[in-house]
Amino acid sequence: MLEEMKQRVLKANLDLVKHQLVLFTWGNVSEIDRESGLVVIKPSGVEYDDMTADDMVVVDLNGNVVEGHYRPSSDTPTHIEFYKAFPNVGGVTHTHSTFATAWAQAGRDIPFYGTTHADYFYGDIPCARSLTQEEIEGEYEKNTGLAIIERFKKDGLDPLAVPGVLIKSHGVFAFGKNGDGSVYNATVIEEVAKMAFITEAVNPDVTRADQFMMDKHYNRKHGKNAYYGQSKK
Amino acid sequence: MLEEMKQRVLKANLDLVKHQLVLFTWGNVSEIDRESGLVVIKPSGVEYDDMTADDMVVVDLNGNVVEGHYRPSSDTPTHIEFYKAFPNVGGVTHTHSTFATAWAQAGRDIPFYGTTHADYFYGDIPCARSLTQEEIEGEYEKNTGLAIIERFKKDGLDPLAVPGVLIKSHGVFAFGKNGDGSVYNATVIEEVAKMAFITEAVNPDVTRADQFMMDKHYNRKHGKNAYYGQSKK
Amino acid sequence: MLEEMKQRVLKANLDLVKHQLVLFTWGNVSEIDRESGLVVIKPSGVEYDDMTADDMVVVDLNGNVVEGHYRPSSDTPTHIEFYKAFPNVGGVTHTHSTFATAWAQAGRDIPFYGTTHADYFYGDIPCARSLTQEEIEGEYEKNTGLAIIERFKKDGLDPLAVPGVLIKSHGVFAFGKNGDGSVYNATVIEEVAKMAFITEAVNPDVTRADQFMMDKHYNRKHGKNAYYGQSKK
Amino acid sequence: MLEEMKQRVLKANLDLVKHQLVLFTWGNVSEIDRESGLVVIKPSGVEYDDMTADDMVVVDLNGNVVEGHYRPSSDTPTHIEFYKAFPNVGGVTHTHSTFATAWAQAGRDIPFYGTTHADYFYGDIPCARSLTQEEIEGEYEKNTGLAIIERFKKDGLDPLAVPGVLIKSHGVFAFGKNGDGSVYNATVIEEVAKMAFITEAVNPDVTRADQFMMDKHYNRKHGKNAYYGQSKK
Repeated sequence: MLEEMKQRVLKANLDLVKHQLVLFTWGNVSEIDRESGLVVIKPSGVEYDDMTADDMVVVDLNGNVVEGHYRPSSDTPTHIEFYKAFPNVGGVTHTHSTFATAWAQAGRDIPFYGTTHADYFYGDIPCARSLTQEEIEGEYEKNTGLAIIERFKKDGLDPLAVPGVLIKSHGVFAFGKNGDGSVYNATVIEEVAKMAFITEAVNPDVTRADQFMMDKHYNRKHGKNAYYGQSKK
Repeated sequence: MLEEMKQRVLKANLDLVKHQLVLFTWGNVSEIDRESGLVVIKPSGVEYDDMTADDMVVVDLNGNVVEGHYRPSSDTPTHIEFYKAFPNVGGVTHTHSTFATAWAQAGRDIPFYGTTHADYFYGDIPCARSLTQEEIEGEYEKNTGLAIIERFKKDGLDPLAVPGVLIKSHGVFAFGKNGDGSVYNATVIEEVAKMAFITEAVNPDVTRADQFMMDKHYNRKHGKNAYYGQSKK
Repeated sequence: MLEEMKQRVLKANLDLVKHQLVLFTWGNVSEIDRESGLVVIKPSGVEYDDMTADDMVVVDLNGNVVEGHYRPSSDTPTHIEFYKAFPNVGGVTHTHSTFATAWAQAGRDIPFYGTTHADYFYGDIPCARSLTQEEIEGEYEKNTGLAIIERFKKDGLDPLAVPGVLIKSHGVFAFGKNGDGSVYNATVIEEVAKMAFITEAVNPDVTRADQFMMDKHYNRKHGKNAYYGQSKK
Repeated sequence: MLEEMKQRVLKANLDLVKHQLVLFTWGNVSEIDRESGLVVIKPSGVEYDDMTADDMVVVDLNGNVVEGHYRPSSDTPTHIEFYKAFPNVGGVTHTHSTFATAWAQAGRDIPFYGTTHADYFYGDIPCARSLTQEEIEGEYEKNTGLAIIERFKKDGLDPLAVPGVLIKSHGVFAFGKNGDGSVYNATVIEEVAKMAFITEAVNPDVTRADQFMMDKHYNRKHGKNAYYGQSKK
């Protein structure tokens, strides 16, 4: 089973390149097997072109390497915090994709401006606060996860209903039911970030779209009576 | 004959990818056979990479599926309203293309700034109003079509002379004599939207171009004495 | 000899696609044989993908088709005015490339902001005035050429030293010693237009770069003592 | 050994195309062999598509061509000044990449706005001053190098800790331990320049990120206790 997970996690990491979310090695995807509590994640600093499924690293929820000949992504402690805090999350993606990272650098939540956003995110895409000097000089990657979790707890957000987040002056984390789903959501965040930038340039006085539109669009795809796609036929 | 239509509609949908108008499954094209009143449309939520002509769905103007093993696009009721209201329209495209959707989110008509626009659109590209809560909570996709038709009726617009429209906080619909033509116009809208964004950034005081230029350019391609292209030789 | 010209003009037209300067059929390149006074130009409204050298059209300086089974580009009268007014011009390109067309729509000359510009354009890239109603309703394409020539004469510009121009609310014309050279310059204009847009966004108070830098850079590539490239070795 | 260097320098120059940092021939990469004091650099004005390793030019630190059938890049005197002033630099890249050149034209240092920047640049990316008329009319390319070195000396910058620089109204130079490393850093500069442009558009009041974040991120990759990547395992 881990072999299949490694294949899936490899493919999900390569999809970061396909969707133009990464330069060089600037992104990573992981997936968790909830039964065993094991996480499969990209090795640190290895080129996507050269990676094989066998290069994926298996870690446990204490961050110990269980299997693999490489060191895991340096962002592994952030991923682990998400898996510990969010029991419904099965995959995590981290990127520095251009437009979303610009919003993170700007320190702003991405406002809900239209249905492209509402089809995947039930609410604004939050931007978590800057870390303090103590948090950065301490267990930095772990604290990155904790600052994000703090924001989700404070706002009462479900990471599968708002499956992505910015972190101030840094970049993007996206969530999914599995690794592939988190890459999908990371791709949506980048597109929504680009659209929101142009939207505000074209109309500096634009306001958030209507809440009842968000309710409709989100539920059309994700609610109990969802009627988008083929799953219910 | 429906087999040929299915082939054409498949190709038109794949052209959305070729012209970079869609991410994932975020767009759809349909075409109508006016004699039988049957519409061929993309199935809902199916990946473009995997689609075959046989996957296209045939519906009638009441929205009943006449043929096909998939559920039709969730936007089918919008397409149907257009075919019912606009007898000269033979194809409809829906996208969330980046720049045009940003204008839709901004809630602005795209002003006529130059000949690229006038070659295909006789007038500004309109942005239809937001739907009300009742319209959204009711027959949402049908009401989307009705709000757009309302705008065309109010302004006395011919959907083949102004073959595309934005809808507030949502995206783009484009019209054509057939599916392929509507994809062409959807591509033009995206390019014109991008140019207009840059135009206003470079000159915030820019005004609409001259009406007599619009008359000339539009008629050069589409008028009775059109002399662009090879059709008259 | 015309066969070779047709091959060159075909290739130059296809390079518009390669350099991403055109959508659909929105651009054209011509070249003149000064000895015979014959011009080879792209046919009107024919897809780049389908064109062969044999489809190129040969016209004389009165606009008469001398050879070819297609109608020539509708912009042919503009090209002809350039060849008549500018004896040193051997090739002409017309595009609606995105950023340059946005500057044309904005109605602004592209200011000299750096060496990328000065390497190819000795001075700002001019934006010719709007045509009057009479000019547009009369011999429109010819008058487009005349308005551009008027600007070059008024400012005393050499079309090989300032090998390109915008025209208000329309697009771009570029000049060269041959068709290929004019495509090169059209590509430079698009890049310079994009850079200038970003430059002004990043520093709204930016001013033109120093004239002595322009003198140096232009002459380094094009002056009597040019030392860029391999031609003198 | 020079044969291997030529192969590496050829590949590094071709990577400029792969990373979309250059149009036409607008960029060059060199590498130095510190033992012999010989520099391998791209020939001037030769198309990337046609270049072979054998076309690379070998020059000494006085600018004399030691080997090669082409004239070296016209920017060679700039490269040489860097190798003379910065003993730890082993490779130099010059580009006119779009966003970074726009910042150079704007005459602004690129502010540190986030970790993408801090992962490679310890401090803002400096923009060196304009050259004076005397400097431009004299040994221009050499003086370009000297103006950049002046800025590094004045600010006490280490060219491997701040491995790139803009020069007013011109473009980008990037440094590395070898040619390949300098291309990597030139690619980072372009991405960081694009992000910073969008960041300021989205939040005009944005301020630099925290210094302790820069310390952390830079040292995580480059410090004595670096833990990113596989090198220490």
